[in-house]
Parts: sequence; structure tokens; C-alpha cells
Amino acid sequence: MSTTQMAREIAEQPVALGRTLDVLIPLRPQLAQLAGGRRKVLFAARGTSDHAAIYGRYLLETHAGILGGLLSPSVATHYRSRLDLTDCVVVCVSQSGQTAEIVESEAWAKGCGAVTVAVTNVADSPLAANADIALVTQAGPELAVPATKSHTTQLAAMAVIGTALATEPEALDADLARIPAEVQRLLAADVADAVAGLRDADHVVVSGRGLMLGSALETALKLEETCLRPVRGYSYADFRHGPIAVVTSGVTAILLAAPDGPLLAPMTELASDLSSRGAVTVGIGGDGEFAKACTTHLPGPDVPEPLAPLGAIVPAQVLVEQLTRVLGLDPDSPRGLSKVATTDPSAGGQ
Amino acid sequence: MSTTQMAREIAEQPVALGRTLDVLIPLRPQLAQLAGGRRKVLFAARGTSDHAAIYGRYLLETHAGILGGLLSPSVATHYRSRLDLTDCVVVCVSQSGQTAEIVESEAWAKGCGAVTVAVTNVADSPLAANADIALVTQAGPELAVPATKSHTTQLAAMAVIGTALATEPEALDADLARIPAEVQRLLAADVADAVAGLRDADHVVVSGRGLMLGSALETALKLEETCLRPVRGYSYADFRHGPIAVVTSGVTAILLAAPDGPLLAPMTELASDLSSRGAVTVGIGGDGEFAKACTTHLPGPDVPEPLAPLGAIVPAQVLVEQLTRVLGLDPDSPRGLSKVATTDPSAGGQ
Repeated sequence: MSTTQMAREIAEQPVALGRTLDVLIPLRPQLAQLAGGRRKVLFAARGTSDHAAIYGRYLLETHAGILGGLLSPSVATHYRSRLDLTDCVVVCVSQSGQTAEIVESEAWAKGCGAVTVAVTNVADSPLAANADIALVTQAGPELAVPATKSHTTQLAAMAVIGTALATEPEALDADLARIPAEVQRLLAADVADAVAGLRDADHVVVSGRGLMLGSALETALKLEETCLRPVRGYSYADFRHGPIAVVTSGVTAILLAAPDGPLLAPMTELASDLSSRGAVTVGIGGDGEFAKACTTHLPGPDVPEPLAPLGAIVPAQVLVEQLTRVLGLDPDSPRGLSKVATTDPSAGGQ
Repeated sequence: MSTTQMAREIAEQPVALGRTLDVLIPLRPQLAQLAGGRRKVLFAARGTSDHAAIYGRYLLETHAGILGGLLSPSVATHYRSRLDLTDCVVVCVSQSGQTAEIVESEAWAKGCGAVTVAVTNVADSPLAANADIALVTQAGPELAVPATKSHTTQLAAMAVIGTALATEPEALDADLARIPAEVQRLLAADVADAVAGLRDADHVVVSGRGLMLGSALETALKLEETCLRPVRGYSYADFRHGPIAVVTSGVTAILLAAPDGPLLAPMTELASDLSSRGAVTVGIGGDGEFAKACTTHLPGPDVPEPLAPLGAIVPAQVLVEQLTRVLGLDPDSPRGLSKVATTDPSAGGQ
């Protein structure tokens, strides 16, 4: 079986993550100084970058004790509201650094009084050029349309921001240093059973909660983009709050959990509940009890919950890439998608 | 054909909205005083209430020039983070006023220094009792499981908050006063063609943008809960940014648009684009050009964009109720759902 570009880029992640952490960790003091006494960090992003931002927001709120939030780009780009952002750091996330609405949101945020941080994979991009501080991820050129190494290196940038603004910026450094090796280990995941559980599913849903929510949404988006089927990513709570009613046999649910933390027990309970409704469950991460509660299980990273998202998406990527090929599709160039996203085609975005 | 409870409650909305606006509009000065110089309004809600909160957030940002945001309840209930919310108004939304995690989030927000506003349909509820100001919606008891009149009256409460904190609180009052009559008119929508377009669809997606995003998500949730099929609600931008790739013939897309505003042209363009991909499109609201771009069209309210969500959901409700019966299902008691939502079953929430 020939290797796809997506598979090669998935395999490059240990190196890409190591390089990115080496370059970005030394920028922590600058980030802390830029933030100063500002009490809020807002993120502007779309798609895969937005999923990294969701992690960044939870990390800030749960680890650094700083209120986070997600900007709605249309407020900047279409409504052109004037908001008071003088108390805010605005983090703009775009792999290419040239997604028009994110570049425009960055300029708008600055005009509203925010200081800005760019997270981009392209040093020579408008997003980086216009930011107060640019965090340039070191994924190298990404050629496959589905983002993999650019996403995990964005997650590394979020970990740098979240720890830079915490009381003890270095508290997680020993675990951060183990991320590349953990990701290397996870690349070898045997996903055959999980692929089988997904191949014949009538409907696929994905769920996670808190720090793992972004990983669940990213898994759903990757499946939807590459396998060309509707896949729902749900927060645990929104899922429980209604749509769980549609789960019966024929549904396969992918559940992502951290190996510890206050949401592991509810995720384990969700796995059991979904099984009792007749669903096939594919668990990623968690602990032994979580694994037992799932029909099929893929190992996650052995790092504490605040950093678990940096590794947990990797078995999901491997799973998506293999499933796409089993379905006879091309993971590198999914139908209807291009590498630089356009939100408003007639607006001349690229 | 006998009338369902859901249909009766949909029909009660003109009266419920009139009563709610009469009771809540006089509370504007108190709301403005409570907010004082606080620069941010955060919402805590789930499900249908969350969709009202999304409207509230856009209205604050686009009409009142105040930064909004959505709290993640797990940060309060599971991570128990200490955040600095001394600059924030926190609005907690729950029909019953007793959803455990929202009640808990309200107490947490107060402990973090926020002032709190409850939006609830039950005056004698813990959420109302513990708030600095309670906005009690006047929907009356809601017996059908799918929320309809409790939702539109929540939207009215959001309109009151959004105008209370604006520079000219009374600027939209003439339009607000027309809402009950507009809703009465929309109850008579002929949804037969739209029901036909949905009945045989392989997949249903719903999209809206900006002020109409919450209405799109609410339409998707109602369809999913009552018709027991997975239905995706997308923001316009997230849809364009990837998942639009899965749209082909067999997909029916419901699109909600306001009759004016900066997002009407992009929504019209989206309708044309989806048609050219082979989808059936059901438009709600918008203008004549938007209607022409859609396969089937239902009229929306004739009020400016900032208030359009108060009416645009009504034809969607009528559509969902009739579709559910055409599918041979019971709209009043969908499988697997109960009236007071529980996020964490083992935590004793109700």
C-alpha cells in the first residue's frame, strides 16, 4: 500500500512538535509582558484552527485562571462593531496566516484596543506581520488538504500561551518535553477494529468534554471532510441534553477522554450509556475503566489532562486516514475542499 | 387531525410574547444600573436556552457595542476554576430555573465577582431566587417536551437585555411592539412544500449567520429531537469552511435569514451555491431575492435584523411540528427526552 501525503504528515508530528515547542517556549516572558494586567483572552479562528482555540480557551480558564472566549468573526468583518477590547489579548489562529476574515479580525481587534498574538505556520504572512507577537509553528509546509501537523503544532502554541499566563509557567514543562515521544508511540496505534466499527456505521457521532472538546470537534471535522459523510461532534453536555435520543444500533460513537481529571468519570458513564442504547463505541485515551466501557479502544497519551489534547488527536488522525482509504477515497484531496479556506467567496478572500 | 400540545403552545406565542415584553421592558433601568460600568456580558445555558443566549450575545455586540461571550459550564461545575469576573454580568438561562449545572454556574459566577441575571420561565425557582435580577418570562406552563413558547419568550428577554445596555434603549421599541402581531401572521405559514422537501431527504442541514445563528441551531435541534434523525446546524462560516463538501442531491438545507443587514447577501449566495450542488433549499425569512434563490420559501418577520430572530423561528416550529406528524411520530413526547434536562445523571441533577 503506497503512503499518502496525509500519512506522511501525520508521521512528521513528533519532529514538528519538538521543533515548535523549542521555538515557542522561550517566548513565554514576552507573552506574559504583552498580556500585562489584561484579564481576558479571546480567540479568532475557523475550522481546525478554531478547535485548537477551544483547547486554548479551556487551558487558560482551568490552568491559568484567566477568562477566555471565542470571537465571532462576523462581528468584526460584517457588522464592524466597535467593542471595548482594551482589557483583552486577542489570539488569531490560521495555518496559512492569510485567511481573509482572520486577518481582518486581527486588524479590527487592534482598532478596538486589544493586543494581538498570531498563531500561524507561515512566518511571512499578513497575520504574523500585523501581530504584536507572532507564534510561528514549525510544522513545515503542509500539502495534504486535511490539517494534521499544523493542528497539533497549533495545540502546542496554545499550551505555550496557557502556561505563559499561569502563575507557574514551567509547572508542566517536564510533561511538555515528553509530548514528541508520546506522539511517536501513538503513531503505531492498531486502528483496524475501530476502522471496522466506523466503516459500516449508519451514523457517526463524536464527543468529548472540557479540555478534550476541541479534539472531539476536530475528529468529527476530519471524518466529515475526508470520508464525505455527515459526522456530528458534540460537547458531552449538549449531547446528553437532547441529541442522545437519536442514538440506537447503527450509530458508532467516538469518545475522547483524558487519562485523569474531573471529566473522566462522566465520559466513562457516557460510554456505558451509549453501549446500552446499542451504539458501537470507539474510545480514545482515558484510563483502564474507560477502555473497558468502550467497544473498541485506542490508547491516548500518558500526560496529565491539561496537555492530553496534544496527543489524543493523533490516534484519531491515524484512524481517519486509514478509514478514508478503506472507503476507496483519497485523503489528500477531499472533494470540494482547498487548502486555504474561504468563508466569503465573493469577498475576494483566499 | 387532532391538535398536538406542541401546536397549541406554538399558537400561544403572540400572547406569551406580548405579556413577556410588557413585564420585562420596564426592568431596563434596573438592568442598566446593575451592569454599571461592567464591560462584558457572559451567558450560561444549554440546549434551547443556549440558542437564545447566542442571539443575546450577537445583539449585545452588534447593537449595544458590548462584548458578549458564552461560559463553559464545566469550568464552573467540574473544574471549579477561580476566574476574575468582577468586570462581568453573567446571564443564566433555564426554562425551569432548576437545571442543576446552570444553578451551580450562577452561584459560581457570583463567587467570582460577577453580578447575575436569571432568565427563567419559573418565578419560584432557585435560578430566579439567587439572581441579582430575575427576568421571568411569561410563557405560562410548557407541557410539550420540545420548547417553543419558552424559547421565543427567552428571545424577548434577550432583546430586553440587549436594548437595556444600548445607548438608546428605546430605539427598537416600535418594532418590538409589532412582534406579537408578526408572530401571529407567521403562524399561518403554509409549510406543505417544505415538509415534502424534508420528508424524503437523506440528510438535513440548517444554516444561519450572525444574529440568525442561534435560530439555525435551534431549528436543527428541534428537528433532531422530534424527528429522531441527525440534523446538523452550522454557522454559515463553519459550513463554507469545509462541511459544504458533503452537500449533494439528497441533502435538504434549511437557511434562515433576516430581511436586511450585512449577512443577507452572503446567505442568498449560499442558497444559490447549495442549489447548484443539487441540494433542496428551504429558505425562511430574507427578502425577495433570497426567496427566489431557494427551492421553497417561508416568510419571516417584517422587523429589522436585530429583532428578526424573535419571529423567524416560528415558521420553523410550525414546519417541525407538521413534519413530525407526517413521519408518524409524536411531537409532544419525543423518545428519550424529558422536560427538565440533566447533564450529569449521576450527579443528581434534575
